[in-house]
Amino acid sequence: MTGKIRVGIVGYGNLGRGVELALQRCGDMQLVAIFSRRDPARVQPVNALVPVYPHDTLPEFQDRIDVLILCGGSKDDLPQQGPALSMLFNTVDSFDTHAKIPDYFAAMDQAARSGRHVAVISVGWDPGLFSLQRLYGEAMLPEGDTYTFWGKGLSQGHSDAVRRVPGVKAGVQYTLPSEAAIARVRSGERPTLSTREKHQRECFVVLDDGADANAVEQAIVTMEHYFADYDTRVHFISEEELRRDHGAMPHGGFVIRSGGTGAGNKQVVEFSLKLGSNPEFTASVLVAYARAAHKLKAQGQQGAYTVLDVAPGLLSPKTGEALRKGLV
Amino acid sequence: MTGKIRVGIVGYGNLGRGVELALQRCGDMQLVAIFSRRDPARVQPVNALVPVYPHDTLPEFQDRIDVLILCGGSKDDLPQQGPALSMLFNTVDSFDTHAKIPDYFAAMDQAARSGRHVAVISVGWDPGLFSLQRLYGEAMLPEGDTYTFWGKGLSQGHSDAVRRVPGVKAGVQYTLPSEAAIARVRSGERPTLSTREKHQRECFVVLDDGADANAVEQAIVTMEHYFADYDTRVHFISEEELRRDHGAMPHGGFVIRSGGTGAGNKQVVEFSLKLGSNPEFTASVLVAYARAAHKLKAQGQQGAYTVLDVAPGLLSPKTGEALRKGLV
Repeated sequence: MTGKIRVGIVGYGNLGRGVELALQRCGDMQLVAIFSRRDPARVQPVNALVPVYPHDTLPEFQDRIDVLILCGGSKDDLPQQGPALSMLFNTVDSFDTHAKIPDYFAAMDQAARSGRHVAVISVGWDPGLFSLQRLYGEAMLPEGDTYTFWGKGLSQGHSDAVRRVPGVKAGVQYTLPSEAAIARVRSGERPTLSTREKHQRECFVVLDDGADANAVEQAIVTMEHYFADYDTRVHFISEEELRRDHGAMPHGGFVIRSGGTGAGNKQVVEFSLKLGSNPEFTASVLVAYARAAHKLKAQGQQGAYTVLDVAPGLLSPKTGEALRKGLV
Repeated sequence: MTGKIRVGIVGYGNLGRGVELALQRCGDMQLVAIFSRRDPARVQPVNALVPVYPHDTLPEFQDRIDVLILCGGSKDDLPQQGPALSMLFNTVDSFDTHAKIPDYFAAMDQAARSGRHVAVISVGWDPGLFSLQRLYGEAMLPEGDTYTFWGKGLSQGHSDAVRRVPGVKAGVQYTLPSEAAIARVRSGERPTLSTREKHQRECFVVLDDGADANAVEQAIVTMEHYFADYDTRVHFISEEELRRDHGAMPHGGFVIRSGGTGAGNKQVVEFSLKLGSNPEFTASVLVAYARAAHKLKAQGQQGAYTVLDVAPGLLSPKTGEALRKGLV
């Protein structure tokens, strides 16, 4: 086991579980333990041999862990846990509140530097891989427009909003990118697109006994901030159908840069993801950046990084020589 | 003009011309001069004010140029010019003979270090952006397969082969990716694809007076190494049609990583390019990496780099702060 990168997981929901699974596919990395604020006895890793410890024992593990992968939420967990833990460990997290990234970066940079650690923040696919593609597109084609579409995917926030409507027993919401809008962008047309033109929303709802379907549908499609600006379809289904057909967490999306060079030559760069499991893919990205965090620290670096600051080769277990031979 | 990155172009064919055009769109960069082995009077830049100097005057410009963009060919020009010039300047080039990249890297690394310069090699879209996508795909989804498709695009080497057939007066060849093969890969199926299944070839040929069309077509479709392993269609057209319909240099392609996470969840990552002008796009990529080469040198780095070694943020004229706020 010598030489493997020793990893700890902080928080064990869908994302933490995905990280455990992703680490199983990385021969150069080793899961040391899971840390949880829940009673450890109630946390059940995929591999029952993985130890689970209380969150507050983390400081005792400084010599046994190379990188911590923080799997908490951006709203309540990471703003506290991130700076506290990056003083003690190299960390990677998926902080995804776009508007607060500059502040979070500053807090993490200060904390990581105080402990001489590396903290890679906002890792995942958006922010994360989509950020990279937005950057590459803009840098290659300075005259152009960047379009981001999301979906088809399950949206947690919008599903929660549906479930808060009186008369709704259970339900999920999918965000769908507009195929017509994507086709226009792919053509090199560079259209200005309204919110309604870019995405549609689709809800699958289980009603409470005796609830009025029309009233529920109206309450959903007119809901400000969530649905009013979109074309929204509502389907009523049984609890059994919900369980059978809507248990997966698919997602995905598109980043398209449409630009011009020379005397009007159109150039279109497109990146897309079609994800069978959103949390498992996000977890896989986190694990690759955990490897990079470890290498950056080994190079003597410290402070906060985003994906834009990490040279791509650091994500791979292969040597530079092997990458040049096989991948470039 | 102070503070702009001062750039020189070495070699002025389609690629050098594309670099001149791309630099016009970069407010933080400035074209100092073009260097050519041809008689400077015979080189005609897009902007007539750009000075053109003989190639052998380059050493005199060491204090006036921050980065040289080498626009020569990979077969005869770069293996000599690259090491000679990277001893004197920071350089960026598009060396694209995949099998020889390790040797070229070693030669450029030694030369660049001897002059304390930075040399970014094999920049463009393949190798280049496609290399990046192959790396990101493999790093995120270690269990998976990577597929690269090229086209629709004009292939210079195959067009040359067509033109060497007796009875052919002029002609072009397009490489086409198989839509059926791409659809299978996109589905997450991970098929094993033969050469014939991945790409088709399409030729547009102008015959010599009195040439036998059947004999020409047979000579093309059975040509070893170029066409025998592919389904090839040959169209006979007039000289006027060739000039009118086939003067552009479109290209493009796809890199698709299809992999799995957890207990069989399919994850598909796709990157594609649809380029109106292949040389102008390649030139735009070179210019962005010239900016990065200058920043790396300013950081005190030296030696050879590929795109895998360059942190994405270095490609942008924006500050890290602006990127975190607007792009991540």
